[in-house]
Amino acid sequence: MDPYAPAPSDHFTFGLWTVGNRGRDPFGLETRPPLDPVRAVHALAELGAYGVNFHDDDLVPPGSSAAERDAVVKRFRGALEATGLRVPMATTNLFSHPVFKDGAFTAHEPAVRRYALAKTLDAIDLGVSLGAEVYVLWGGREGVECDAAKDVASALDRYAEALNALCAYVRQQGYPLRFALEPKPNEPRGDLFLPTVGHALAFIERLEDPDLVGLNPEFAHETMSGLSFHHAVAQALWSGKLFHIDLNAQRIGKYDQDFRFGAEGVRDAFYLVKLLEDAGWPGMRHFDAHAYRGEDEAGVLDFARGCMRTYLILREKARRFHGDPEIQAALAEARAAALREPTLPAGPTRDALSALRSEAFDLDALAARGSGCERLDQLVNELLLGVR
Amino acid sequence: MDPYAPAPSDHFTFGLWTVGNRGRDPFGLETRPPLDPVRAVHALAELGAYGVNFHDDDLVPPGSSAAERDAVVKRFRGALEATGLRVPMATTNLFSHPVFKDGAFTAHEPAVRRYALAKTLDAIDLGVSLGAEVYVLWGGREGVECDAAKDVASALDRYAEALNALCAYVRQQGYPLRFALEPKPNEPRGDLFLPTVGHALAFIERLEDPDLVGLNPEFAHETMSGLSFHHAVAQALWSGKLFHIDLNAQRIGKYDQDFRFGAEGVRDAFYLVKLLEDAGWPGMRHFDAHAYRGEDEAGVLDFARGCMRTYLILREKARRFHGDPEIQAALAEARAAALREPTLPAGPTRDALSALRSEAFDLDALAARGSGCERLDQLVNELLLGVR
Amino acid sequence: MDPYAPAPSDHFTFGLWTVGNRGRDPFGLETRPPLDPVRAVHALAELGAYGVNFHDDDLVPPGSSAAERDAVVKRFRGALEATGLRVPMATTNLFSHPVFKDGAFTAHEPAVRRYALAKTLDAIDLGVSLGAEVYVLWGGREGVECDAAKDVASALDRYAEALNALCAYVRQQGYPLRFALEPKPNEPRGDLFLPTVGHALAFIERLEDPDLVGLNPEFAHETMSGLSFHHAVAQALWSGKLFHIDLNAQRIGKYDQDFRFGAEGVRDAFYLVKLLEDAGWPGMRHFDAHAYRGEDEAGVLDFARGCMRTYLILREKARRFHGDPEIQAALAEARAAALREPTLPAGPTRDALSALRSEAFDLDALAARGSGCERLDQLVNELLLGVR
Amino acid sequence: MDPYAPAPSDHFTFGLWTVGNRGRDPFGLETRPPLDPVRAVHALAELGAYGVNFHDDDLVPPGSSAAERDAVVKRFRGALEATGLRVPMATTNLFSHPVFKDGAFTAHEPAVRRYALAKTLDAIDLGVSLGAEVYVLWGGREGVECDAAKDVASALDRYAEALNALCAYVRQQGYPLRFALEPKPNEPRGDLFLPTVGHALAFIERLEDPDLVGLNPEFAHETMSGLSFHHAVAQALWSGKLFHIDLNAQRIGKYDQDFRFGAEGVRDAFYLVKLLEDAGWPGMRHFDAHAYRGEDEAGVLDFARGCMRTYLILREKARRFHGDPEIQAALAEARAAALREPTLPAGPTRDALSALRSEAFDLDALAARGSGCERLDQLVNELLLGVR
Repeated sequence: MDPYAPAPSDHFTFGLWTVGNRGRDPFGLETRPPLDPVRAVHALAELGAYGVNFHDDDLVPPGSSAAERDAVVKRFRGALEATGLRVPMATTNLFSHPVFKDGAFTAHEPAVRRYALAKTLDAIDLGVSLGAEVYVLWGGREGVECDAAKDVASALDRYAEALNALCAYVRQQGYPLRFALEPKPNEPRGDLFLPTVGHALAFIERLEDPDLVGLNPEFAHETMSGLSFHHAVAQALWSGKLFHIDLNAQRIGKYDQDFRFGAEGVRDAFYLVKLLEDAGWPGMRHFDAHAYRGEDEAGVLDFARGCMRTYLILREKARRFHGDPEIQAALAEARAAALREPTLPAGPTRDALSALRSEAFDLDALAARGSGCERLDQLVNELLLGVR
Repeated sequence: MDPYAPAPSDHFTFGLWTVGNRGRDPFGLETRPPLDPVRAVHALAELGAYGVNFHDDDLVPPGSSAAERDAVVKRFRGALEATGLRVPMATTNLFSHPVFKDGAFTAHEPAVRRYALAKTLDAIDLGVSLGAEVYVLWGGREGVECDAAKDVASALDRYAEALNALCAYVRQQGYPLRFALEPKPNEPRGDLFLPTVGHALAFIERLEDPDLVGLNPEFAHETMSGLSFHHAVAQALWSGKLFHIDLNAQRIGKYDQDFRFGAEGVRDAFYLVKLLEDAGWPGMRHFDAHAYRGEDEAGVLDFARGCMRTYLILREKARRFHGDPEIQAALAEARAAALREPTLPAGPTRDALSALRSEAFDLDALAARGSGCERLDQLVNELLLGVR
Repeated sequence: MDPYAPAPSDHFTFGLWTVGNRGRDPFGLETRPPLDPVRAVHALAELGAYGVNFHDDDLVPPGSSAAERDAVVKRFRGALEATGLRVPMATTNLFSHPVFKDGAFTAHEPAVRRYALAKTLDAIDLGVSLGAEVYVLWGGREGVECDAAKDVASALDRYAEALNALCAYVRQQGYPLRFALEPKPNEPRGDLFLPTVGHALAFIERLEDPDLVGLNPEFAHETMSGLSFHHAVAQALWSGKLFHIDLNAQRIGKYDQDFRFGAEGVRDAFYLVKLLEDAGWPGMRHFDAHAYRGEDEAGVLDFARGCMRTYLILREKARRFHGDPEIQAALAEARAAALREPTLPAGPTRDALSALRSEAFDLDALAARGSGCERLDQLVNELLLGVR
Repeated sequence: MDPYAPAPSDHFTFGLWTVGNRGRDPFGLETRPPLDPVRAVHALAELGAYGVNFHDDDLVPPGSSAAERDAVVKRFRGALEATGLRVPMATTNLFSHPVFKDGAFTAHEPAVRRYALAKTLDAIDLGVSLGAEVYVLWGGREGVECDAAKDVASALDRYAEALNALCAYVRQQGYPLRFALEPKPNEPRGDLFLPTVGHALAFIERLEDPDLVGLNPEFAHETMSGLSFHHAVAQALWSGKLFHIDLNAQRIGKYDQDFRFGAEGVRDAFYLVKLLEDAGWPGMRHFDAHAYRGEDEAGVLDFARGCMRTYLILREKARRFHGDPEIQAALAEARAAALREPTLPAGPTRDALSALRSEAFDLDALAARGSGCERLDQLVNELLLGVR
């Protein structure tokens, strides 16, 4: 039996836009035909996924009448019921239509901002009706190229105003829904607001209803800036704010690649998987990625399979990390557990601080002790490479 | 009269380590002799600076006896009094000595963490005794290369514990001192904790005494990751957390360069100066930079002069921005002021949200309107280039 | 009279695809209507441009019959004659159609490679018929995401084979045409072959007819990798291989931005302009850039005006650099001219090398001399900022 | 028996400066005591290395008298003889002493350039006397921060002059020595000349004796710019110019890290090893890396062991790549071998080019074929992860 075959209990989810990606890029036309959402649902179920997520426009073509929308949703719901696939998350497309060219919640024009809010309220209703418990907000056009044009403080005011309105709506409706902000540093705008996990975490603290809002960190987005995605997710977890996650692959300092999970940066991917699994994090393992542009439909399925298999391979390695006696000995040698000991066990009382200042430190001895990290790191590398 | 000659009222400050930088780098030995701190004070005063900042070790050589320290401090205080130069900020060197090779507040070894705290408490006393009102904390060694060795959540726990202890001490002593965290993404460690302004802002919210702690953003550090420094500082201001600032220059994706302010990224520097001046921000304009390694002492003075002159030139341009009729017309054409208008003037009441959803939006008309940013951006460029 | 108004004698050129860019990006639909090439010609002529360049598909819609093509070309030629605008360069679109998804000259499939060659031969005929003397080759799809799939040596063999065939054709036809390779590091592929000016220069030396092939360096492409564009162009000039140039603006480590010339990196732009002007380089000043996506047609014209104005402003500053007595004094102080003196005036004879080894060098004195670069750099900055 | 234990026949070499690195960095003092070169030789021999390389100053302390030098060399030679360790490569330190602060071969000051040449000639004699057949030239200070100060064409002239002189000397002496240029984009200078493998390859073609000069590409240096190291080395091999190689690890867009081989970018490392092994490249596998700063001497040995083990693990995987039937089937499906077929088997004759233009291409069919890269890439990932 294949130990790396995914099952719904693994909680893997994909967006309709991921397996449905048609391969268009800034320099080339579509290479793949459209993928019917119902067909996507069946394909994902056969592959062993747990759920499927969508932007409003992925499911309901923009401009549909109410009747058309209802028909589309009914057919989609039928596929979900037939397959058992769930919809754990939903989101809004606030970036494709030219009306959002100056942003959505931070557009100069108040009517654009109101339209963005209205579109999001509609999409929240749709998502909740299909069972979504997390609502992702990616501010893909909330940013600038010409810094003179947009005052950052005002933009953050408007961004917060929109979030406050969405939270108020969810409270008014009594929806069991939480929001997850997805940070990104740039592309398609020169600079985006809330560019990293940190900036978004900090922003949430200034909202009126911070408990309803958390993060949807994306591997590619944090990695584009050369920041450690594993560290960012760890800080989000430490802050109690990891509500959702976007898994994919990306090389530092390049265009947004959204490659198959593990296709680049497999070591970073390992530490991320280990973090989520060690923490027992209960959320969805969502893949926000797409197949290379050269693939046909078979390649798209290979892509989806590969995302899940790599996660499961890394999950198994994370388990073996804890059972590997040499790795555990190297951790002990590196004194890793000592970091959990408080520096001041009794707290920073006057006495404790005073005692500290008269303590005799043998700096030379402390400095001489080797960190043991070369050995530990090499052992982990060999675990990753499958030779231990 | 030179319109760009600095005066103490401009509140320019330098670190002892900046004009005293000796030009050592990873591949080369020192190119300049040591600079006596007293000589630095006199030189900075002659150049028109307002103040001088220091790490404990910059002023008092490590290993000094109490008597030696007192003699050094007395002589330094004499220079301050003779010149009128102030010490608005102080900080601790928690990175040069090998004892800190695994970090200071997040070192595995509790004794190293205690020593780091004790050294900081001593340095706080010294800084306060010389008038410092801001205490900068740069966690230059708080990070990792081998992710297996250091659990991020534990590291953040220890980092927060240290901050909580420092805040408790300042409260106990009744010192008029606030802390300013200085984020940096990497170097000298592979990945540093609190890598950006955002991550540090978010971290502060989890401390026991968040009011005492703010930010010391550095131009080079945020820029290394390709993030907009101007946006980061704007978010810090928006959060009420801009306590200090480090001005210098840096190219994206390179080693920590700490070049003369304006030497790279003059457009980013302009938007930063404009932001600080428009906000009437009352803090120090601190330069954390150093002369090119090839310079002699005369070059170091040229470097210091250049930092201040460029700030003053950009300040003048920021003023002219507001008085330039074509720029103001372009801003009006770009509808920049509309961003200050609330999206929902009455707030997100049920009625307001409901009304929003029945509002008719003319998407085509909204999408057709040009943003006017090419014209505006070009006008600002020409202001910067001095041809308007 | 406006000193920065462009004239045809300034030799500014634009691609049809630049002013005709419709604002589509990876996350959004077109924001601007199509621009008729004839209208583009008239608009560019009115703005003061010298010429217009095109990809085959920009002018002749793919799939046109011979009669349709002739009609399109005739109408376009009419506009050129009416306005006096020239076509100094032409190129082929080998990236938009899905057939090129695996590359053009380096596609696995020989039929794709043959089609790419045939399409290029047709486009060469078209370009030459309209007066083009330079033919640009941008290998936008010549690259990989999955390194296992494509052997680099074979890819370079095929790339060279294609270039050799194109050169043979031009020789056979007796066309007065030279080729210019346009390097790019990545996007739309994960890694592109010939990623920098250097790699392309080296590649040319392995071709059968290297004299016919040179470079078309692009500001954005070299800058994406954090490399100095000015240095790259200088090395191309030094190698006698600067056949064309693409001017625009870009931030390091980000997606391909193609901003208005000078919109980012104005200092790099200055050194580039100074290099071209000091060298008396006779080629076209071509802008391969496009307006921000938010602009309407008026904004597109502002964009085109801005490119040319910034070039002319920087050209004027480059002239003033040579006439500024303080800058010239600082150059003398920095001993800049000494770099033109040979190290071994008589060449590396046995005697000269032997003499060298017995020469007494006063290392301390040589090391003590300041480089004078802080002062020089600041003076140039002030020239750029228009305050001298 | 350990299948990954290194033996001299594996041709692994280390620099004295690598195992002897003392852990100093821009922000911290040395953490490790000096390592006696003789002790280094014995340690490397015990670890299974083939050879040891050095900068002149690594072996002979600067300022040594001729007698002191001879004593040092004699003792070192004794260790070589005792252990059987070889010295396949030597190089010059042209970057540590302040005299080189403005560069060595491209310094403004002719006396500095002459001193650099003289120092290199001495070091060549020393290297050759110990058996070196490759002489590496890393131009660590050949670059600028202030572009106004240094004319690039003149700098390239001087650089070429120096190379020409060194080649002349080697010819005069009849030494069996070839030169290998080591490119680097930046650090310790803002921009270095010959920043990539490509720029250096192109430069060599303009030298008087290009056959004597090739490349020493370094993993970290090419990777700093985000370029593919594997592609760069492949182009160097394709050009017949891979004379030496520097193996280590590095993250894109960061300071020069020189980590243990495979510590970052293990997938890039795999493709590199596969390239060298598939090509049967006969050169040394040289590690230009150093242990993390936190390590003690035991950690330094772990570091050296890890470099070699990882190479051998990847070499074994490269072999298995060729024998894995699923991978080979995926390569066939991806039509990888077709890239070796010429596009124009008969060459670019008039007839062949003419025939090409009348060939009927079924673009839709060609475009529809999937590339099969998702499947292939995933299989390689699983090979790397050791689960196949």
